[in-house]
Amino acid sequence: MRDAARFASLTPMLAPKSVAIIGASSDPTRIGGRPIATMKLRGFQGMIYPVNPNRCEIQGFRAYPNLASLPEVPDVAVVAVAQSLAIAAVAELSRMGVKAAIVFTAGFAEMDPTGTGPTSIAQAELITAAGAMRVLGPNCLGVFNDRIGFYAMFSSSFEAGFPPPGRIGIASQSGAYGSHMFSAMRNRGIGTPICVTTGNEADVTIGDVIGWLAEDPETDVIAAYAEGIRHAPSLLQALSVARANRKPVVMMKVGASAIGRAAAQSHTASIAGDDAVTQAVLDEFGVVRARTTEEMIDIALTATRRIYPVGNTLGVITLSGGAGVMISDTAEQLGFALPPMPEAAQAKLRALVPFAAPRNPVDCTAQVFNDTTLIGKFTESMVADGGYKSVLAFFTQAGGVPSLAPHIRAEIGAVRNRYPDRLYAMSLLGSRAVVEDYERDGFVVFEDPARAVVALHAMGRFGEAFAKAPPSIPPSVPPIDLPQATPNEAEAKALLVQAGIEVVPERACSHAEEAVQAAEAMGFPVVMKILSPDILHKSEIGGVLLGVGDADAVRAGFATLLARAPDGARIDGVLVAKQISGVECLMGVVVDPVFGPVAAFGLGGIFVEVMKDVVFRRCPFGEVEAEAMIRSIKGAPLLLGARGRPPADIAALARMLARLSVFAAQHPSLAAIDLNPVFATPNGAYAADAVLEIAHGR
Amino acid sequence: MRDAARFASLTPMLAPKSVAIIGASSDPTRIGGRPIATMKLRGFQGMIYPVNPNRCEIQGFRAYPNLASLPEVPDVAVVAVAQSLAIAAVAELSRMGVKAAIVFTAGFAEMDPTGTGPTSIAQAELITAAGAMRVLGPNCLGVFNDRIGFYAMFSSSFEAGFPPPGRIGIASQSGAYGSHMFSAMRNRGIGTPICVTTGNEADVTIGDVIGWLAEDPETDVIAAYAEGIRHAPSLLQALSVARANRKPVVMMKVGASAIGRAAAQSHTASIAGDDAVTQAVLDEFGVVRARTTEEMIDIALTATRRIYPVGNTLGVITLSGGAGVMISDTAEQLGFALPPMPEAAQAKLRALVPFAAPRNPVDCTAQVFNDTTLIGKFTESMVADGGYKSVLAFFTQAGGVPSLAPHIRAEIGAVRNRYPDRLYAMSLLGSRAVVEDYERDGFVVFEDPARAVVALHAMGRFGEAFAKAPPSIPPSVPPIDLPQATPNEAEAKALLVQAGIEVVPERACSHAEEAVQAAEAMGFPVVMKILSPDILHKSEIGGVLLGVGDADAVRAGFATLLARAPDGARIDGVLVAKQISGVECLMGVVVDPVFGPVAAFGLGGIFVEVMKDVVFRRCPFGEVEAEAMIRSIKGAPLLLGARGRPPADIAALARMLARLSVFAAQHPSLAAIDLNPVFATPNGAYAADAVLEIAHGR
Repeated sequence: MRDAARFASLTPMLAPKSVAIIGASSDPTRIGGRPIATMKLRGFQGMIYPVNPNRCEIQGFRAYPNLASLPEVPDVAVVAVAQSLAIAAVAELSRMGVKAAIVFTAGFAEMDPTGTGPTSIAQAELITAAGAMRVLGPNCLGVFNDRIGFYAMFSSSFEAGFPPPGRIGIASQSGAYGSHMFSAMRNRGIGTPICVTTGNEADVTIGDVIGWLAEDPETDVIAAYAEGIRHAPSLLQALSVARANRKPVVMMKVGASAIGRAAAQSHTASIAGDDAVTQAVLDEFGVVRARTTEEMIDIALTATRRIYPVGNTLGVITLSGGAGVMISDTAEQLGFALPPMPEAAQAKLRALVPFAAPRNPVDCTAQVFNDTTLIGKFTESMVADGGYKSVLAFFTQAGGVPSLAPHIRAEIGAVRNRYPDRLYAMSLLGSRAVVEDYERDGFVVFEDPARAVVALHAMGRFGEAFAKAPPSIPPSVPPIDLPQATPNEAEAKALLVQAGIEVVPERACSHAEEAVQAAEAMGFPVVMKILSPDILHKSEIGGVLLGVGDADAVRAGFATLLARAPDGARIDGVLVAKQISGVECLMGVVVDPVFGPVAAFGLGGIFVEVMKDVVFRRCPFGEVEAEAMIRSIKGAPLLLGARGRPPADIAALARMLARLSVFAAQHPSLAAIDLNPVFATPNGAYAADAVLEIAHGR
Repeated sequence: MRDAARFASLTPMLAPKSVAIIGASSDPTRIGGRPIATMKLRGFQGMIYPVNPNRCEIQGFRAYPNLASLPEVPDVAVVAVAQSLAIAAVAELSRMGVKAAIVFTAGFAEMDPTGTGPTSIAQAELITAAGAMRVLGPNCLGVFNDRIGFYAMFSSSFEAGFPPPGRIGIASQSGAYGSHMFSAMRNRGIGTPICVTTGNEADVTIGDVIGWLAEDPETDVIAAYAEGIRHAPSLLQALSVARANRKPVVMMKVGASAIGRAAAQSHTASIAGDDAVTQAVLDEFGVVRARTTEEMIDIALTATRRIYPVGNTLGVITLSGGAGVMISDTAEQLGFALPPMPEAAQAKLRALVPFAAPRNPVDCTAQVFNDTTLIGKFTESMVADGGYKSVLAFFTQAGGVPSLAPHIRAEIGAVRNRYPDRLYAMSLLGSRAVVEDYERDGFVVFEDPARAVVALHAMGRFGEAFAKAPPSIPPSVPPIDLPQATPNEAEAKALLVQAGIEVVPERACSHAEEAVQAAEAMGFPVVMKILSPDILHKSEIGGVLLGVGDADAVRAGFATLLARAPDGARIDGVLVAKQISGVECLMGVVVDPVFGPVAAFGLGGIFVEVMKDVVFRRCPFGEVEAEAMIRSIKGAPLLLGARGRPPADIAALARMLARLSVFAAQHPSLAAIDLNPVFATPNGAYAADAVLEIAHGR
């Protein structure tokens, strides 16, 4: 699945030595003129070849009437011609051996929500014409790579300036939003020398771009914006490379697209939506998802310090007890540990400033300004004695005033030099110049302390992802022959038993006396259920009887169930099962159109449906990951022994979930699996109901 | 309870005609010198009387050796002397008839977490010495009122500038944070001419200040910061006045203080914490709680437009489809309605710009810059045809560039002039000067669109609060004689029945045969429960038996329950109750030390304990409010008929909850009530277990 050359193939597109512009214009404000004007201004280090049949010279460069007349085969071509001409241009570029095309031209699949209309067909033709040539777009805003002055991007934002030096790369599906991110970062003085917008993604995807940035030695941090993932393998490989290379990825993933709807017929899928699946994939690789542009910028900026703590803890030094409380609130909400200072260190600090409250947050009070060396002493104690991985100093406007700022910088800066492996953030109000002084010293600076907490916390999430042990080996599940059509419940359970999944003892019975016999063999009470491939959700038609207590009740129940079956449903009989008590759980598998089979775990139907307390993970996975999933739901205390209940057998649950994930991954013909309920008991876990849905025509 | 003069009594403190400074200093950087220097600089419109026995003149003002020598009784005095001298100074001020003192001096109750130490006693003495004189502080940073140049505040922030004109008032318990808020707003060009910090709140509380600002004709918006509410009546009256006067209150309330701990012995209190109670009170009055300083500033600024829509809807016009999706995500998360444009209007806009996606968000594409009058046409259609109460325009960097900004301002501005009752927010990237141009036109401007959505949504929450019908009349509950000590379950239920609260049919039985008789009279199955005033949580000792099915099982159960009772527990017998099925709910009352009895509602113990899905409201309240509480929990679908269940009798539940709230409010001797479970059935609601806890020594 892994393709070693996948990302390197973008190099001619993102770092070319020569570029042709098809549809070049002398007007620097037009789509075919702006790239030339901008590259001229920024001194592109390669060759620029304007192509225009009507001119000999464009913006001071020699122009060529056609591709054939170019003096060399360029690395990349910008296609800025009308839709009707674009396919022919791409075909010719490919024939010449050009390695990459950046297609600005619009009027392709973005015009056609059905995916089958003439513009979608034109896009397919474009890609066929491209052959082995990589294509960005169509309908994209393009690329810039300021390190070499390469500006194959059509954006008015350059009127307001270019990126300062820096090591953040931007990958965006949206041109407008990619440009917005770059502009907002530039305005804050943050360098994003590379920005790639992928548009329709007919070939190059956001995953490809993230992967290229992950392999780029001059990029440390990747900021990505996505509306929908179109291609799983490139994204999965990219995130894997990024994690291996310790490159944090912060992603804004918006929207709940329609791609998951096809799977919505199964119970679990209707809850999942594709966003939950995407979230599970991002979590798997330690991608931090930003909720807003501001958060994305804060996290990306903080990540450029390249300190990603494992076991992150927050130490707060503050002039204001109130700010300390607010910071604690934010940290707690994020689950960011704020351990107290050691008692001895607290005593030491109280001896220095009697009114100080040095527990953590460490309220050092404005007394420290009477002797600014106290700031250093407090901070050093927090780092040395408190051992905090992240330090946030709330100095509000005092941190920005000229009489105090240099002292604060010197004092905390000296601690930073002695302990350079920690993160240091300042929350203060100051002029741009003062803030830049702090930033040059290596601090990250925020006005709002809550934003600082979010950014510092994200660094720990990156750290955990980078340090994480390789995933556990998924269990081995024997190959199983699946039927061509959706099996009934009893057949489904028999198949699951082959996969090593334990089910509640039960027997399919075709007449009432057989049911009585089965019940007497198992022991009362029993559960009775109608057995039909046409009834997926039995409880909705009253097709499940609980607590059936004796032989007469079994006979009566048999008749009741048959009477309740809808007209025309095929009836295979009645299932008699031992009534087991335990915590009711749900396990399921949905097949995501992008990421394939995804397992779900939650507590009983109500918790999943009403409380949305459910967790997802890509199949297959091992027992360690399964157990982490189980423990991650909000309702986990119910399984771990809340209210004096006996704790459930988590190991058995995890084993079942991991086996289910392997079973699903091994069988592409499965459209969905729904084990609901699974009884988690103190000794084992047992599926009491099972639906195995077989995809049509697979 | 309402005190008409409560807030007016602060006028001499916040808008005085004369001020004395006790402990006046010639050094303008010292605590007794800075107020004089600042008032001189800002041209205080009243008289300034420095008091200092050692000087004839201070900073150009005549100084007085003592209070007796002042030429008049000043409206207010600033106390900036050592702790040992402060009480005597306050006593003398009070004797003279000074109406208010602002006490900077620290070293009082803030030094003493127990509340009984010498510094707390000194604070009590200070207040006794003040008599009828109002006191701000002690240990406060003071007050400024820039409209009259009154600066009784000790803050270095004024070195960086003073507030521009404006109509936002700040009330803060924390001096440092009040100063931080004012400084951050000033740096953004937002005017907060009044800022009051309350420090230890020995007399004047945050509620008093909010109330004064709510009555102040020159204040439109109140920004408040609180760490803990010390005095409920002033806050409740203030919020009531603010709502009546249509003054939005945006509050940052941090921390989970210790004040709720006393009540933690009861089951419900351990979930509540006082923060949930405070939140319930804020919700009751339509106070919007800001999570961060930034959010507070955004909301306060937007509120200064004084447009508070009822039935708020969001219309989004955007250059970027992606930004539209992100804005939709944020709006949906807040529950902010984003209805689609009417079909006819969509067709009209598509005729203007063929590639536009005008559903809402309305993606007008960059085409509108070819003919900027299209921007006006699109916006007008959204306001006129779409009828949106709030319009957010995402123009990113294009909105800030000199070639486009004036056109955008003119086009949307013209719509704004024709429909001035709507809110118009811009999300763009531009220089400070460009942003100020937009702001002068009446737009609110945000860089990050998510922040704009949060602020616009808050305006609708204010609008709903201002438009809300008066609360419904709480039901009448007859007076009931409560016992001196906590009653057992049967006694508790009998008392609840007197209050009109229905309970499950049951009988307390003192021996097994009586239990059999009771069960046979009710019909099997029954529930059996141990009956003891010493066992509050029966299920934890196995003291509840469910589904007891026949006479023999009743006899066996009786013996089992007695055997499980802990040694030494007083046993009153065994309760036999009809086993009712329905949705298990919890109703409870906790007594908050500040706000008094507060009712809680949630689903079964597990939903409340594990999922924290519970809602609170101050007692007493009527059935309308009770029903709104019931419908507001996340698990409400379970009561409303999720998964084909019959809907529960919500009216009966609401009646029970409202009666419980009145019962609690009428009986101050109640420490807690816990009805758990209450069965919500399709016909009626029945409490199956009840604890009425009587407070010791009341």
